Amino acid sequence: MKSIAEIITIGDEILAGATLDTNAHWLTGELVTLNIPVLRRHTISDRTEEILHVLRSLSDDTGIVILTGGLGPTRDDITKKTVTEYFGGKLIFSESLFQEIQEKLKHRNRTIPESNREQAMIPDNARILPNPMGTAAGLCFKDKKGRHVYLVPGVPEEMKSIFNESIRPELTKLPGEKIRVFIYKTTGIMESEIVDRIDEGLNDFPMVKVGYYPSVYGVNLKMTVKENEVGTVEPRLRDFLYNRLGDTIYTEGDRDITEIIAEKLTTRGWTLSVAESCTGGLISHRLTDIPGISKVFTEGLLTYSNEAKIRRLGVSVNTLKKHGAVSEETVIEMARGIRQKSGTDTALSVSGIAGPAGGTREKPVGTVWICALTPEKEKTIRIQFNKGRHMNKHFASQAALNLLRKLLL
Amino acid sequence: MKSIAEIITIGDEILAGATLDTNAHWLTGELVTLNIPVLRRHTISDRTEEILHVLRSLSDDTGIVILTGGLGPTRDDITKKTVTEYFGGKLIFSESLFQEIQEKLKHRNRTIPESNREQAMIPDNARILPNPMGTAAGLCFKDKKGRHVYLVPGVPEEMKSIFNESIRPELTKLPGEKIRVFIYKTTGIMESEIVDRIDEGLNDFPMVKVGYYPSVYGVNLKMTVKENEVGTVEPRLRDFLYNRLGDTIYTEGDRDITEIIAEKLTTRGWTLSVAESCTGGLISHRLTDIPGISKVFTEGLLTYSNEAKIRRLGVSVNTLKKHGAVSEETVIEMARGIRQKSGTDTALSVSGIAGPAGGTREKPVGTVWICALTPEKEKTIRIQFNKGRHMNKHFASQAALNLLRKLLL
Repeated sequence: MKSIAEIITIGDEILAGATLDTNAHWLTGELVTLNIPVLRRHTISDRTEEILHVLRSLSDDTGIVILTGGLGPTRDDITKKTVTEYFGGKLIFSESLFQEIQEKLKHRNRTIPESNREQAMIPDNARILPNPMGTAAGLCFKDKKGRHVYLVPGVPEEMKSIFNESIRPELTKLPGEKIRVFIYKTTGIMESEIVDRIDEGLNDFPMVKVGYYPSVYGVNLKMTVKENEVGTVEPRLRDFLYNRLGDTIYTEGDRDITEIIAEKLTTRGWTLSVAESCTGGLISHRLTDIPGISKVFTEGLLTYSNEAKIRRLGVSVNTLKKHGAVSEETVIEMARGIRQKSGTDTALSVSGIAGPAGGTREKPVGTVWICALTPEKEKTIRIQFNKGRHMNKHFASQAALNLLRKLLL
Repeated sequence: MKSIAEIITIGDEILAGATLDTNAHWLTGELVTLNIPVLRRHTISDRTEEILHVLRSLSDDTGIVILTGGLGPTRDDITKKTVTEYFGGKLIFSESLFQEIQEKLKHRNRTIPESNREQAMIPDNARILPNPMGTAAGLCFKDKKGRHVYLVPGVPEEMKSIFNESIRPELTKLPGEKIRVFIYKTTGIMESEIVDRIDEGLNDFPMVKVGYYPSVYGVNLKMTVKENEVGTVEPRLRDFLYNRLGDTIYTEGDRDITEIIAEKLTTRGWTLSVAESCTGGLISHRLTDIPGISKVFTEGLLTYSNEAKIRRLGVSVNTLKKHGAVSEETVIEMARGIRQKSGTDTALSVSGIAGPAGGTREKPVGTVWICALTPEKEKTIRIQFNKGRHMNKHFASQAALNLLRKLLL
């Protein structure tokens, strides 16, 4: 079997513009990590002729096809029937699968609709892949060219669970080179600056495939190394990257900066409070996405109005009058104020102009002041970035979290 | 030209699993609204043979093709060259376009890289579509079958701006039935309940195409009506929907519930403060995504710890001891407390168990209490919903905003 994949998404709701195709995106990421390049992705409707068209147009290079179906049992059936017949089989009723589905639904106290009989119709030319999360089983067809064609339901949880439990183990066993992907996440540094710092030095690592992936929270580096070279290459590569990029790397692997901060606070036994203005609660929202954060994070205040800054944080009227709400003096008073009032060990504050209105010549939209405090250190920075209100909030939240992270190093 | 479309996305970063294909999603939504069904979507790499393959496999039914390119100028060129030659043309250097690009870059104080000469190479068999946001122009080829093949850059802002300014006006002029799409957004009601209430009655509207689109914030209804029937059908349809669904419809058109709340507060001249616990700042974050919200929204407090609830909001130690942080009594004291301390006219409070830990037999994970206050009314509700920490936060934020919205009706 050739290790090149195509992904087919069958979904009228996607072609109606209502649903973002996150299944194909997730599958792509998983396949790439397994060293299986994705040649093409297709999104088609659940019509027989469309399914046949895409099956007929598969590349000769393709050895693996993953086809994710629509959402309802009825829709899945068109796909199942079409693919079964395309590969020369037919659907037969499986009493044992039917019993199994009924058991599952009984456990959930659900009534058993007639359409579930359809879900117990299985191809006589495919292997069944169990679905731990639902009632529609996954299927694996093998065609004359040796291709594996996997059929999985479109419900993301079910698709992922069948992939993880049945498909991934098969793909891992494929002959061919095994690879490992190392992720280094950076923030507070431009992609071009990273390239300047590491591009030449990477010539010493011809065996490493390098990918740069910029996002609003920073640039992620993906380093792909052959499994049998990991031992010799990875420690040297790691040293090289930290040597050149230093503390702009905030984590290895796929974690958020908030998890790193939570970890560091927990290790030190320190607590945190946050005073926000232009980020509008986003920093608190991001921190509280981490389970168990309540052990270190006690309160987050969005002091949007000047009055709230004065009353809640003790920012002085004078400072606001003299320097304005978006100033170094104000964010220092905000951070000191919330730390004192909340009794935490560390504090973070942000004030800026998210836009679209509110900018001036000296302080244009996108101007943001940030202050971070620990028992040992106090630091302020000013950033300037304008990509619209929504992006400004995200960018400022990341810059603030990053300032705190660096003080915790 | 036939009004059926295919969308081709060329992007190695998408096939590397690094980038979500939001361009295709956006274009699909726009085309569907223009009554142009999207037959297929393709994602391929920027290799000549892949581009040729997909062009050759276009359906005979397809009259419109939109091809979005990769991100860099170098990558765009492979696409441009391949498509130009496929349609029998060649690239020629345009001195005037080159001057224009240089002017644009000068205005932004940017250096002019040599690769911009490439961007001034234009096909001799295509129309140029100006790019107001960048330097890579859009192109329109017309093939022998009368198909229009549009080529636009992959940078989302540039793609959207070329679509809006050049492509949309052309597509609007296409012969064929014009349609109008009416969106009704509901919240706090299950999809099955909506179906129960309106499905039969919709038989009186055979000329209306109905779509149900569930999301975490509620179910959106899309009603498609032929342009020439709008006058007779839409007022009757509207009456019918409000009659059956009442105030579960929070808006028509594509607006967020926070915009509706901001509008209602502004109309009444009322201000708002918010006290959050389990939603972790998400309500404040969602409210502050609305430009100008600072006029009505003064502060949002994430009082995560009991101490913060006592100190910041004046919740009584007794209430917390007797009823717990997740209780009707606590959310009432939170809402009254923040309203009093912040001096706003209205207030909203939420306390619950986001999970994964912290649940008990009486108050399992997903239990949320909400209180909303206006000068005239006070209302509390309890909701129960557990789809994981992240979803619980989003669901609770929407339920809270919806409670406030209903008090403002």
